[in-house]
Amino acid sequence: MKIIIAKEAGFCFGVKRAMDMIYKIPEKYPDKKVYSFREVIHNPQEVKRLESLGVRVIQNIRQIEGGAIAIVGTHGITPLEQENLKKKGIYFVDTTCPYVKKIHNIVEHLAQNNYQILVIGDKYHLEVKGIMGHCHGKGKTISSSSEIKNIKAGPKIGIVAQTTQNTNEYEKIIFDIINKLFKTKQMEIRIFNTICDATYKRQKETMRIAQKVDVMIIIGGRNSANTVRLYKLCKKIQKNVYLIETAGEIKKEWFINKKILGISAGASTPDWIIKDIVSKIKELNI
Amino acid sequence: MKIIIAKEAGFCFGVKRAMDMIYKIPEKYPDKKVYSFREVIHNPQEVKRLESLGVRVIQNIRQIEGGAIAIVGTHGITPLEQENLKKKGIYFVDTTCPYVKKIHNIVEHLAQNNYQILVIGDKYHLEVKGIMGHCHGKGKTISSSSEIKNIKAGPKIGIVAQTTQNTNEYEKIIFDIINKLFKTKQMEIRIFNTICDATYKRQKETMRIAQKVDVMIIIGGRNSANTVRLYKLCKKIQKNVYLIETAGEIKKEWFINKKILGISAGASTPDWIIKDIVSKIKELNI
Repeated sequence: MKIIIAKEAGFCFGVKRAMDMIYKIPEKYPDKKVYSFREVIHNPQEVKRLESLGVRVIQNIRQIEGGAIAIVGTHGITPLEQENLKKKGIYFVDTTCPYVKKIHNIVEHLAQNNYQILVIGDKYHLEVKGIMGHCHGKGKTISSSSEIKNIKAGPKIGIVAQTTQNTNEYEKIIFDIINKLFKTKQMEIRIFNTICDATYKRQKETMRIAQKVDVMIIIGGRNSANTVRLYKLCKKIQKNVYLIETAGEIKKEWFINKKILGISAGASTPDWIIKDIVSKIKELNI
Repeated sequence: MKIIIAKEAGFCFGVKRAMDMIYKIPEKYPDKKVYSFREVIHNPQEVKRLESLGVRVIQNIRQIEGGAIAIVGTHGITPLEQENLKKKGIYFVDTTCPYVKKIHNIVEHLAQNNYQILVIGDKYHLEVKGIMGHCHGKGKTISSSSEIKNIKAGPKIGIVAQTTQNTNEYEKIIFDIINKLFKTKQMEIRIFNTICDATYKRQKETMRIAQKVDVMIIIGGRNSANTVRLYKLCKKIQKNVYLIETAGEIKKEWFINKKILGISAGASTPDWIIKDIVSKIKELNI
């Protein structure tokens, strides 16, 4: 059986960078207690690996004692949370994705220059919550065009998107905003395309592979939104699709009489899990 | 016969302001020669009136001698032309429309901050030529969506419109620009709605009036684009429409058996011509 592994499978640039930083902590600060402020990554196996190295995942800054080290995840935090960590004397390793950091800088600049800020994305997502904090009260989240009617437009509007926003959806919302506001008066609308193309590229490549194989395996956490999304997209074009977290879930019967297997993985799936699964499949000798 | 005169008929804010400034010149500088650098206004009667006051219309700065006064029209001029006037020791009365001046300031700011600038409008129009000068080599004119394919996009793009651009057309071009560029990469598009709503309001009101009258008169220069546009728009919904420049052109037969007359005028039509025509029609006693 031939195996095709998606080039875009697994850790995106931001997650890879974050994990590299995190794994250096125990070596760098051998005597410090290390906390992860919320989950750094939506992959149970990788989180377990982190925990085995002494990293404790907590949800609230109150759970961290002064002098300890806190890991700030890829999605970033608000300026208030940064302030609270500093006040408590907690040193934090900031793994915020540079693409998210760029959005923080953009909205800080917009807020300082009195723009109304519209953040297009999921208001319950950690990334969006962090961005909103950096808007300093001048931000509003918009998750769909239906929410545009509530905008009371000033003369200067700035628009940014969550890094994982769908490009077509972002464009549609921008068009609806322009259409609603431009007729009324002279004004400025400043739009930033802040969408990271890793998710888009991964979905596109995975679907292309799913079309030309007999069976498809998606690797990643069942709590990872982008992994589940990959699985659902493949299901539309390929009936033999399996979502697994570990090599232990593999069943030989999936591959009987199959000629080509396709493999892809979510942005939070570590390479060691992908490699582990690939070698387990090769051992089956099909 | 009842007469309805459009509220938005005649001089727009910018033209009115310019003419107020111009008619004060002979009083303020009684000993100076006064030139109009290109036509200040597209109305032959008003230009003739200006000429009778000693204002000479010229097309080239070389035709003006040092020490004279030059009127800069509502459409504005380029920084190079300003410089040339200053170098020759010519004092210029700048009647550039404040809405156009605002665009000059916007593109100057964009050019200083290394934005690529797209000017949406008619590249042969004086206003657009002036704006392009203020872009200091960083501007490009776009008159229709078909020209978008030639844009080589950098990371920062600023977009402005000619003040008389049609709002729907401007939106369509913006959407096409976003659609072409956003898919490619992270970038910023900064859009300014610089359209002046006087033209839009005048057209809307004129068409509303044309629908409910028996006969319609449009007053203005046959060389005035916005006046001719009003005439053509009315022709679509009303067969009895007449475009005239002066009271001398009125024909009694137009009004026989008519109950309501509608009157509108272009942005460059002075009040005295409108009043003259209205009183001539009233004298007909129809």
